[in-house]
Parts: sequence; C-alpha cells; structure tokens
Amino acid sequence: MSEGVEWALHCCVDLSRMRPSQPVTAGRLAKLYDLPIAYLNKQLQALGKAGIVRSAPGPRGGFRLARPQEEISLLDVVIAIEGAQPAFRCTDIVRSGAAGRFAADCGHRSACAVAQAMRAADLVWRKHLAARTVADLREIAELRSPRLGEVIRDWLGGAEVPEQRDRSGRG
Amino acid sequence: MSEGVEWALHCCVDLSRMRPSQPVTAGRLAKLYDLPIAYLNKQLQALGKAGIVRSAPGPRGGFRLARPQEEISLLDVVIAIEGAQPAFRCTDIVRSGAAGRFAADCGHRSACAVAQAMRAADLVWRKHLAARTVADLREIAELRSPRLGEVIRDWLGGAEVPEQRDRSGRG
Repeated sequence: MSEGVEWALHCCVDLSRMRPSQPVTAGRLAKLYDLPIAYLNKQLQALGKAGIVRSAPGPRGGFRLARPQEEISLLDVVIAIEGAQPAFRCTDIVRSGAAGRFAADCGHRSACAVAQAMRAADLVWRKHLAARTVADLREIAELRSPRLGEVIRDWLGGAEVPEQRDRSGRG
Repeated sequence: MSEGVEWALHCCVDLSRMRPSQPVTAGRLAKLYDLPIAYLNKQLQALGKAGIVRSAPGPRGGFRLARPQEEISLLDVVIAIEGAQPAFRCTDIVRSGAAGRFAADCGHRSACAVAQAMRAADLVWRKHLAARTVADLREIAELRSPRLGEVIRDWLGGAEVPEQRDRSGRG
C-alpha cells in the first residue's frame, strides 16, 4: 500500500475540521505535514475523482470534503488511492500446466480453495474499513487532544504565514 | 502481494498430499503449474527459511512439509513470502512539518488515530488467515474433487513423464 493512503486519510480528517466556506489549498496541506506538493496533489486529485473531495479554483479556492464526513469510510479513501483490486492476486495457476489438464480430465470446475480463502480474508479487511469513517477518526483525534484539532483548523483556515527560516540560516 | 503467495499456498497443499517418503522436486512443482522454476525455487527457499518446508538434496531428494499441515496457517505462508510488515505503511507524517510543531506545542503524544485504525484492520485480516491452515485448504479441495487430489499426488510421486510436444509441432 502506498504512503498516499496515509496522506489522504490525514487530509480528509483535516478537511473534516473546516467549515464549507473554508477550502484548503494543496500547498497548505503539504506544508502541514512537510510533504512534496506535486505528489500530494496527485492524491487529492484521486480523492476528487472518487467524489470524496471537491476543489474550487482561484485565489480563495482549494479542497473541501464533497460529502459529510460520516459518509466517507476508510475503505472509500483506500480504494480512491489504491484502486479496488484485492491485495491477493489470483493468476489461476491451477488452470495451467499439468494441473490444468488434470482438472479438465476430472471435470473439476469449482473455484480454487486458495483463491477463496484469500478473498475471504480480504473481505473481512474491507468490511472492517467500510465500517469506520472519517468522522470516527476525527472524533478519536479530538477526544485525545481537543486543542490540537483547533490549532490545525485555525492554521489551515488562516492567512499564509511566513516561511520558517531554513536550516542553513539563509532564510 | 506478489504472485509468489499463490504459488506457495498451492505448493503447500500439494506437498500435504504426499507421504513423508515422497519429496517433490521444484522442477516437478513448476511443471505442475507451468511456472518458471528459478522463481518458484526462490519461493520454496523462503518457505524453507520459515520452517514450513524442508528440502533434501540428491537424485531422490526434493521438498516436503516440515511440520504437520494442521500446524501451517495461511498467515505463516503469507509472512514467509511477503514478510511480516503490515500493508499500511505509517511514515508518521503527523510528527513532521507544522503538524509536528503543533503536536509538540499541545503536548500531544498519543498514537495517531489513522495508524491505529489501519492497524486494527490489518490485525483482523491476519487473525482470519491465522485461523486457517493448509489442512483446511486441502480438505476443501478434496471434498470438491477427491479424484483430482489423487491424480496430482500420483503424478507428483511418480517417475518423470516425457515432455508434452510443444505447440510449434517441433517437439
């Protein structure tokens, strides 16, 4: 799983803190976590394609959640970034080589026990992620540190702040 | 997840059909599924390192299960091939950039809600795979087609058979 999933989940939680009138730019989200803006923007575009965020252009534009945070599951975000294919890839080797000939000779057409077992595990994982939402994550985060959520919201919603001096002292 | 997991699981089920006196060569397993022998051998070596299979050298050597099939879980095989690290990579972005400074200012040290949620889903997946064994897979396969299991066992345990004619007609 790519690191884009971690970035996207955090960005969704951050956007869930904002009012609808407060879109957040990719640049500001990138600065929040010190992430490369071009690559973060790619993840945000993927969230947009999946109908999870919406973007508005212009100087006062940016990203906001496209639907209520209670209706965005962790599975929605994972699928938006990674695609819907299961982690286990079945290449159907049982239909190849000698095994394929034997199966045909025996008239065996049932689904493969290996693929079924791995898919069942994948389904359990998906159900777990589908049952948890961005709202749940935000609630846990706010319970643990109510102040931190406020600080992040104020900073994301505020005016641009000056860049920190860079570490070489030239800033 | 690499295709090596599929290959390794099928090979374990096949080896579970054999008597202890019937080791199977990597070449024969590769022929069973029409797989590249060098790459299959790499997976079998990984199973060996994990204590799942054991190999004996020599003309009558080959691979056999290193412990009872009831004691080899699907998770054991997945970890042998893919390693034990979870699919979700937490790079701890909440400790970087502005977010890291805010968390420090707020004295926030709790574990991150995103990482915890993704780890919980991973744990559910692992528990599911840990509760199923090679013996379970073999039982399902044999229930569906008792004859197929016998045919594969006889072929794996038998003498080398001549190569099939290749498709160009030159064989």
